[in-house]
Amino acid sequence: MSGARPRDPTFEARIRTSFAKQGLMSTLGASLLRITPGVVEIAMPAGPSITQQHGFIHAGAVAAIADTAAGYAALSLMAPGVGVLTTEFKINLVAPAAGERVIAKGRVIKAGRTLTLAQAEVVAVQSGEEKLVALLTATLMAIEKRDGVAD
Amino acid sequence: MSGARPRDPTFEARIRTSFAKQGLMSTLGASLLRITPGVVEIAMPAGPSITQQHGFIHAGAVAAIADTAAGYAALSLMAPGVGVLTTEFKINLVAPAAGERVIAKGRVIKAGRTLTLAQAEVVAVQSGEEKLVALLTATLMAIEKRDGVAD
Amino acid sequence: MSGARPRDPTFEARIRTSFAKQGLMSTLGASLLRITPGVVEIAMPAGPSITQQHGFIHAGAVAAIADTAAGYAALSLMAPGVGVLTTEFKINLVAPAAGERVIAKGRVIKAGRTLTLAQAEVVAVQSGEEKLVALLTATLMAIEKRDGVAD
Amino acid sequence: MSGARPRDPTFEARIRTSFAKQGLMSTLGASLLRITPGVVEIAMPAGPSITQQHGFIHAGAVAAIADTAAGYAALSLMAPGVGVLTTEFKINLVAPAAGERVIAKGRVIKAGRTLTLAQAEVVAVQSGEEKLVALLTATLMAIEKRDGVAD
Repeated sequence: MSGARPRDPTFEARIRTSFAKQGLMSTLGASLLRITPGVVEIAMPAGPSITQQHGFIHAGAVAAIADTAAGYAALSLMAPGVGVLTTEFKINLVAPAAGERVIAKGRVIKAGRTLTLAQAEVVAVQSGEEKLVALLTATLMAIEKRDGVAD
Repeated sequence: MSGARPRDPTFEARIRTSFAKQGLMSTLGASLLRITPGVVEIAMPAGPSITQQHGFIHAGAVAAIADTAAGYAALSLMAPGVGVLTTEFKINLVAPAAGERVIAKGRVIKAGRTLTLAQAEVVAVQSGEEKLVALLTATLMAIEKRDGVAD
Repeated sequence: MSGARPRDPTFEARIRTSFAKQGLMSTLGASLLRITPGVVEIAMPAGPSITQQHGFIHAGAVAAIADTAAGYAALSLMAPGVGVLTTEFKINLVAPAAGERVIAKGRVIKAGRTLTLAQAEVVAVQSGEEKLVALLTATLMAIEKRDGVAD
Repeated sequence: MSGARPRDPTFEARIRTSFAKQGLMSTLGASLLRITPGVVEIAMPAGPSITQQHGFIHAGAVAAIADTAAGYAALSLMAPGVGVLTTEFKINLVAPAAGERVIAKGRVIKAGRTLTLAQAEVVAVQSGEEKLVALLTATLMAIEKRDGVAD
């Protein structure tokens, strides 16, 4: 769905504004790396504040940026005025997340009126080399006319 | 599997020591609420540092404590010396996570030699009332004799 | 949600009628064992027509009855006139499905207006003993006013 | 992982032999369409014996061939003598499975010593047009030296 046509021409600004409101992304040091229709990438530097017990990046932190990348990939194709919520996601962790930083690459698989299916690959980056560490699949729901839920 | 017999009598101290090494749990303000054989509960206070864009607790933060609760529930029944890693989890988010704090209640469904299946319910607590906000299912792997992976 | 109040008093007849239309359930030899509000159970006898390559019951057949049990558990609480479709499910296979028959026990975790979360445990039965072989979690969607999709 | 190097040069014959033992695939009318290292495709014709209640192909039948395609994609890269078992899969159903037949296209995402991650896209075929109807992600386990589990 990369290259899909956005229904809201202001999708990039809309995503940046919404992302800036996410306290967790700021806490994790995450930043938006790329926003194109149907594709959003988020980077997060490794560090002691996001580790699990063996010193790798915690699966929860990996999942957080992967879910967010998938969610904004979905939002990039949604109509103006609606909000996006994750209804479920599944993540497979195929290697310990070790390296200088991780990048979650979200993309839309199927955009529907109510539900959108998106995936995010997460790679760990070390010395310029990328290694797959996780794969997330998420269902995102377009929320219309509910107080406080707009993006 | 609540009430199952632990293979390591020091499981509680082992889990507390391992949890204390998790930088992410400290960053999220999460704490261990309960440790019994096959059951581990983790609490996390709401606050601006863990929000998503609408002000609810971010699904990634919810997933982080749910995964951790499921993982330590699994570890509570594992043999001495092995480490635990999450190989995959799936989470359904059934209501926005709003309230004073959330509690993830992890429990073992099936403990195997290599793989353990665990679940975690996450409830939001408001004025003493608990409301289900998420359900996670995770596969945990017992890791033996790998450098740096022991709990 | 067992014991929940059905919105359609004819839910049992409605589920029996819908189940009878499922060619796959007939092909698999599956039958309805129990229908109560929020809970539906389906049984399937073992046999050479549903095996995988090692002679166990195929994960796909296990998933088919588990998905169906979860779906009808959801339908048992839905309003008259709507149809039910599975939008996603996840299944963990914790033991080979061997025995005389398997039973999928579906129950609603959270019934929403559009989406319902349900689970199904699948047990294998051998000489009167039940053993857990799989756990499924599914999201079911209530479909209104779409041609051909009503239950 | 398409194009990956197989560890067993007889992988194609091995998969055909194993597939032929699956009673369920025969019952569903499924057949092997393609076997290359890391990629396996399975086709299944539509028909009244595999429907759900609205006349679409049942999600359980879709899942059965998708799981099988993912499993054999994994097996195509495994060492001689081991058997393959699915430990979990997740499937998102993005459109009703309607058409002349469906094809599940399994491919390996990450092959590990014990666990392999694979995906399968399922498309419905109508008048030569393919439409995505489902996406499955599965974890496959290599089983060594267990009676009755070899492929």
